[in-house]
Amino acid sequence: MAGTFVNEALIGKKDGAGELATPALVIDLPAFERNIKTMAEHCARAGLTLRPHAKTHKCAEIARRQIAAGAVGICCAKLGEAEVMADAGIENILLTSPVVLPRALDRLMALNDRIPDLHVVIDSEENARALEAAAEKAGRPLNVLVDLDIGLHRTGIAPEAAPALARFADGAKHLRFKGLQAYGGHLMHIEGFAERREKSLAAMDVMKSVKDALEKEGILCPIMTGGGTGTFDIDPEANVLTELQGGSYIFMDKQYNDVEGANGNVPFETALYVQMSVISNNTPRLATTDAGFKSFATDAEPPLLRSGAPEGASYFFFGDEQGGILLPKGESLPLGAVLTAVTPHCDPTVNLYDAYHVVEEGVLTAIWPIEARGRSA
Amino acid sequence: MAGTFVNEALIGKKDGAGELATPALVIDLPAFERNIKTMAEHCARAGLTLRPHAKTHKCAEIARRQIAAGAVGICCAKLGEAEVMADAGIENILLTSPVVLPRALDRLMALNDRIPDLHVVIDSEENARALEAAAEKAGRPLNVLVDLDIGLHRTGIAPEAAPALARFADGAKHLRFKGLQAYGGHLMHIEGFAERREKSLAAMDVMKSVKDALEKEGILCPIMTGGGTGTFDIDPEANVLTELQGGSYIFMDKQYNDVEGANGNVPFETALYVQMSVISNNTPRLATTDAGFKSFATDAEPPLLRSGAPEGASYFFFGDEQGGILLPKGESLPLGAVLTAVTPHCDPTVNLYDAYHVVEEGVLTAIWPIEARGRSA
Repeated sequence: MAGTFVNEALIGKKDGAGELATPALVIDLPAFERNIKTMAEHCARAGLTLRPHAKTHKCAEIARRQIAAGAVGICCAKLGEAEVMADAGIENILLTSPVVLPRALDRLMALNDRIPDLHVVIDSEENARALEAAAEKAGRPLNVLVDLDIGLHRTGIAPEAAPALARFADGAKHLRFKGLQAYGGHLMHIEGFAERREKSLAAMDVMKSVKDALEKEGILCPIMTGGGTGTFDIDPEANVLTELQGGSYIFMDKQYNDVEGANGNVPFETALYVQMSVISNNTPRLATTDAGFKSFATDAEPPLLRSGAPEGASYFFFGDEQGGILLPKGESLPLGAVLTAVTPHCDPTVNLYDAYHVVEEGVLTAIWPIEARGRSA
Repeated sequence: MAGTFVNEALIGKKDGAGELATPALVIDLPAFERNIKTMAEHCARAGLTLRPHAKTHKCAEIARRQIAAGAVGICCAKLGEAEVMADAGIENILLTSPVVLPRALDRLMALNDRIPDLHVVIDSEENARALEAAAEKAGRPLNVLVDLDIGLHRTGIAPEAAPALARFADGAKHLRFKGLQAYGGHLMHIEGFAERREKSLAAMDVMKSVKDALEKEGILCPIMTGGGTGTFDIDPEANVLTELQGGSYIFMDKQYNDVEGANGNVPFETALYVQMSVISNNTPRLATTDAGFKSFATDAEPPLLRSGAPEGASYFFFGDEQGGILLPKGESLPLGAVLTAVTPHCDPTVNLYDAYHVVEEGVLTAIWPIEARGRSA
């Protein structure tokens, strides 16, 4: 059994989705496909390139579907993730975090040799010099973007220092300066639309001023990349970005569902959930499921029950391997009862699983491996 | 690069541990070996069988080392975990959670055919009847233990209902009743020793009373299994268990390090940590590392810095992919600086990684795959 996917035998079986070995990560295919289409159409309408972040899904099949729907390529957060995507045939990748360790630079150059369109961000001259030396040694130029810190302080260079770094990259023999990246991670989950809009536009103004300063010197920024699911409907208005990086829009999660869109609601649907089963029910008003800390990300609130439990029931973490379902008075759940829950935070939940179970009207239609799961190095 | 372990080329290299692609999960081999030996000697001295819980490490090499040091076999939390361990040659496994889904029963019977010593717990007559039917159909008897609820209410049957279930199992043609399991998960992390001892002994008394009642009827309980790292020095005193299930003692973590032992200190050492590297440092008193929500369990407090950072520095989660190091005034960390941190909670942290990096005096001596990672179904 080990080494293959335990639920493979259920593919195509009528009502087979109800029989999955659990916990299982499940994609609601119609909702997922609508999300892919909605974002692609949104970007096309706004005249923006879409480059979805693959750190959300870590799955080559999903990357291929995003590209087929119009995306130019993908973003990857880590080198190991990008290597796996390149292995799977993805040819246009932007690495959105700096790559700094000496051995990682060797891997980066090998990747640059393997795919036609690799881009990587830089946020310091020290790193830019190291990349220049590595690209010279490798004998192939490397595309770079300057990562701007627009207030998150996680990666990126301060706006006032950015022009000097861009100038350095533009003048470096083996680097090709391609533009700017800015990600306002601190803005994505501001729940009210008006406040999120105001702060996002201010941050985008900063990015624009850096671009304007560079263009005055004759340094062009053909790629202006950034944004996320939380600002997808604000970014076009700023008229600064050429490229949107949203990731979570394909799945959505509890965190993003709490965020309010321009028209009151975000047009993306929840398309990802975890299916679990009751394995013990000896205590009144309590059922124990087979999904705990190892089956849901725990950096946000607990999972939100979606199906299989009576109104008023709630999930709580019951250790590494199990979850508890707190039931209203008089209610119980039988052994083997199947429940689903919306993930609190989709990206780190996905990172726990080896595969997606793709479900359409109760039928498991495919299993998609999550090839880049755990590729954080 | 994908498909093999990215750090393999460093095995045996002088000071190679400092060059690991990060984030990387690292075992301090001497400390780990002392932990294995300390627990094995403790059990031998107390006349107890050791059956360590493999849900902590999910690694066949570690299971083999535990067995070589005297353990009778291992515990597994999930069927998928047990299947992987059986594939790797482990022949004596106790499944510590009930197995209830119909397709899972088929897999359980297949596993029972493959290894000589499989045991599984039951906590309801409904489940016992299903196992009896499955074992009859498979044509091979199944060893079962009755799981007792001693206060956690997660799995297990109430003590007053346990004798009837044991009687049913003992009388079932295709089940072999082997004894009782009780796990006081709610007791493991009580920080003060006196309180933990008092509550644990009371819980063990409950287990003993069920055993005594059964033995009066002539139903023997040769296996009395339970306990954990938090009560390893209390359980022998209770004189109820025949078998200890501790898991975390091999690695320890921040949670267990806060627990006080009988002699003031627990004799187990921290032997597991996460190595990470600084990838950005543009903001004063702040450095950004490459390890975030996808590299540490987040169900407990943040990771505790162990090496590489100045006194007074602390780690905070900086999103899915990164961590922040808050530095004392006047301090900074260079790009590429290597830090290590003690994991907040070892089990779910291990479940994020595909391999252990085994380090001895700065040398990476081996990479052990975590074969059962993610096998929660």
